[in-house]
Amino acid sequence: MSRVVTLDTSLRDGAQAEGVSFSVLDKLEIIRVLDEIGVDYIEAGQPSNPKDRELFALRPPTRFSKLTAFGPTARKDTLPQEDEGIRELLSVQTPAVTVFGKASLLHVTDVLCCSGEENLRLIEQSCSFLRAGGREVLFDAEHFFDGYLLNRDYALECLRAAARGGASLLVLCDTNGGRFPDEVYAVVRDVRACLDTPLGIHAHNDTGMADANTMLAVEAGAGHVQGTLCGFGERCGNANLATVMAGLSGKRGKTLSCDLSSLTRAVRTVAEIANVSLKSNLPYVGRSAFAHKAGMHIDAMRKNPATFEHISPEVFGNDRRFLTSELSGRNQVLPFVRAILPDAGKNAPEVAALAGLLKEREKLGYAYEGAEASFELLVRRELGVYKPLFELVYFRTFSEQFGMNEGKATALIKLRVGAESALSAGEGDGPVHALDSALRGALKPFYPQVGAIRLIDYKVRVLNPRDATASQVRVLITSTDGGRVWSTVGVSADIIQASWQALSDSVEFYCLEERRRGGEEKTS
Amino acid sequence: MSRVVTLDTSLRDGAQAEGVSFSVLDKLEIIRVLDEIGVDYIEAGQPSNPKDRELFALRPPTRFSKLTAFGPTARKDTLPQEDEGIRELLSVQTPAVTVFGKASLLHVTDVLCCSGEENLRLIEQSCSFLRAGGREVLFDAEHFFDGYLLNRDYALECLRAAARGGASLLVLCDTNGGRFPDEVYAVVRDVRACLDTPLGIHAHNDTGMADANTMLAVEAGAGHVQGTLCGFGERCGNANLATVMAGLSGKRGKTLSCDLSSLTRAVRTVAEIANVSLKSNLPYVGRSAFAHKAGMHIDAMRKNPATFEHISPEVFGNDRRFLTSELSGRNQVLPFVRAILPDAGKNAPEVAALAGLLKEREKLGYAYEGAEASFELLVRRELGVYKPLFELVYFRTFSEQFGMNEGKATALIKLRVGAESALSAGEGDGPVHALDSALRGALKPFYPQVGAIRLIDYKVRVLNPRDATASQVRVLITSTDGGRVWSTVGVSADIIQASWQALSDSVEFYCLEERRRGGEEKTS
Repeated sequence: MSRVVTLDTSLRDGAQAEGVSFSVLDKLEIIRVLDEIGVDYIEAGQPSNPKDRELFALRPPTRFSKLTAFGPTARKDTLPQEDEGIRELLSVQTPAVTVFGKASLLHVTDVLCCSGEENLRLIEQSCSFLRAGGREVLFDAEHFFDGYLLNRDYALECLRAAARGGASLLVLCDTNGGRFPDEVYAVVRDVRACLDTPLGIHAHNDTGMADANTMLAVEAGAGHVQGTLCGFGERCGNANLATVMAGLSGKRGKTLSCDLSSLTRAVRTVAEIANVSLKSNLPYVGRSAFAHKAGMHIDAMRKNPATFEHISPEVFGNDRRFLTSELSGRNQVLPFVRAILPDAGKNAPEVAALAGLLKEREKLGYAYEGAEASFELLVRRELGVYKPLFELVYFRTFSEQFGMNEGKATALIKLRVGAESALSAGEGDGPVHALDSALRGALKPFYPQVGAIRLIDYKVRVLNPRDATASQVRVLITSTDGGRVWSTVGVSADIIQASWQALSDSVEFYCLEERRRGGEEKTS
Repeated sequence: MSRVVTLDTSLRDGAQAEGVSFSVLDKLEIIRVLDEIGVDYIEAGQPSNPKDRELFALRPPTRFSKLTAFGPTARKDTLPQEDEGIRELLSVQTPAVTVFGKASLLHVTDVLCCSGEENLRLIEQSCSFLRAGGREVLFDAEHFFDGYLLNRDYALECLRAAARGGASLLVLCDTNGGRFPDEVYAVVRDVRACLDTPLGIHAHNDTGMADANTMLAVEAGAGHVQGTLCGFGERCGNANLATVMAGLSGKRGKTLSCDLSSLTRAVRTVAEIANVSLKSNLPYVGRSAFAHKAGMHIDAMRKNPATFEHISPEVFGNDRRFLTSELSGRNQVLPFVRAILPDAGKNAPEVAALAGLLKEREKLGYAYEGAEASFELLVRRELGVYKPLFELVYFRTFSEQFGMNEGKATALIKLRVGAESALSAGEGDGPVHALDSALRGALKPFYPQVGAIRLIDYKVRVLNPRDATASQVRVLITSTDGGRVWSTVGVSADIIQASWQALSDSVEFYCLEERRRGGEEKTS
């Protein structure tokens, strides 16, 4: 059971991803999440960047993780003590520093524009100066694998220079992400045989191999892995640290300091802070990672979960799901129908009809996989056991903008509730927000409980962008009353109408649940 | 230079992905794309599914690719000739069929609920019956790797039964996606040593290893790879066939029948048809795959592209990009400033001011990485060389819906153009569409060229979904005049206002370009 040390560089290499940009508050929040799950090192930024200096000045508190600051070796023809970058690296007072140097002669001659000898001096002296300053020194050997294949001896010399300077860890970097697992395995084994200093691996994903390269580097003797918790990073991204940690601990018997039972939540939280939409099919932690759609798989899973799952989702705090879709067919509709008609079988005409309706609605662009509440309402409507809360007479939304001033959005709505009618108006940040206010204003006298509903997520998906502003849009709304969480969907060419469907379903569903709780309604 | 055969299963295994659903027309279009790039086999569907039978009945024409139909071995206690599934498989008249059978005793006993012997009989007889029917038979050994580790001899017996039955290819499947490259390599090598029939690999991505497992299976002796062009598939997806093809041909010296120079276009087209948002950091073909953001990387790339690129983007029909963002700093602003002030240097005050402004705008949620037209307008406004086409006096949009009827969206707009004013109205599918009509109606008497603009893409991104309908939204609009294509961005809490910014920038930018083309404007 060998132990593997983890370093997350979401705040440094991750910030180099297209579309990723962190505020200081974002960074503090990410540090909190990483510390909570027990990542060993957090590479928090580059002191040469003013925003990162601001972060370091706050001395972000951690319970477990060590913060590290990132920067290059001293510039050519300078001593470390004269180098501004090295001084900045010391000034931020982190317990550890990651200093990166070139380990490829191509980069020494073409980018640094100095001799191989001079580069070795820079590496050794930079490490020893930082070490003398009381820092734990991690040396990132940039372009190591490419450099090794170009000139093995020189690449190894770079590592030796860092070790002589006092680096306690030598990180072998596939900076351009162009290498494959068999190559990485062979190189790491060779380095392991030549040197005693602990080795790390830092892989990029340009050939889609970052996670595999990281796993095989560990098999070959690396005891430290670097990546970003969601996998984002420059170009094609870094190794996905969640995938690597889950694989090492869950599948390959390695010991980590991390608590993987909250891995799913941690990954999703960091993605939300980074404002990155997580691939739903991300291994171990994605929403679809344990979602079964093919009817035959679902049948088998019900017989024995080991048949179509390589590991249990609970290990990573994730959930198993059986999806509602044309492929899974009647099996999926059945539990919804049985909630109303307890004796219905797979071949009941209601089940067949609903499976057909589901197919039709999906063709229109509806997706019920993330909107079970709307699906339940659809089933109840079809089975004729739906008592609508209200009837829409009409709504109108107005958006206006005068010159350069901020715009204004207002809405009015008229509903019929039983024998009475209700007219109400709302304002908001945009027409959907205004419509939501108006709807709840109109309902409150009849159903005071709607005051407890809060919308916590609002997603818009343009379904056929080729038709531009006349595209169909799918709106997905997630609501809560503080405890329960439910999602509803709407589809239309008009975003306002699509939002209306999802908004009204959300309110309907909540009131239905409340009635169920209150025992007013019996299943017939 | 060994040759590797490719099979795409986007239409079969890909359709088992959460959120993926194809119409018959979608499937025909995907077959066209796959055939065009020269994929060897296209697994087009399961004849047991009525929609797929409809597709096969159309006899989709191909120039190069062979279609294959997919289905299970005969059910237990039946002969193939009596089995409905097997008869359906023959009925669709494809040159090849993929028949799948269990290669793991766990699945034989727990899912099929029959003896190991009976399963071997089903495999052999199903293959031989299909072979006798004139089909090329590919045998998918389901759960092969798990089965091999459970009971090596039995797993090999399954392969031998298929070979005896006349299967010309034995596909080793990691159906649950739980295996690692070193395991796959060792198993494939062993099988290669035991059997003569050609081997294929079918990997799933539940440990993030599907692409690596596929690459290493080829190194170990498999000559046929299966995957989906965009990587989607059941749970965490299949091997990404684009990543695998690019790696095999571009990096590992294998020969494929595929034309990789249009790989990027093919992948993006299939993603669009499947309505799947492609990861921008997808290896080789993603929008960010060759996008450089860190200032230091950009500097090095300008000296020598080999420094930060493992292969050239042109090989796959992709582009290199240098991104506009806080990390890349002044280097990125410089070319925009120089278009107006040709002598400006990196330290010019205009460059510094714009780099600061860029940073501020990004904090507000603007992303100029995909909206260079808006960025150019921003630069021109800041440098005072911007001549606005028009001034907005006001606009109003109205959305309304009566009961269950379809809603209606209308807009009116008043502009000042020079000394004159223009009032115009528009209708549309939704308020943005209506506003677009009204804007162009108002401008047409002054700038007839705006009639040529067509919006071809409209994207909405909710920036802080925790605040739900009051979130900031970023709207990205892509426009064309039939030849040129340009993108613009807008951000606001109100989707109408965000859309207005992007719409008006689009029109402004087009007219600016037209003036430049007409030579009316000299750079000062």
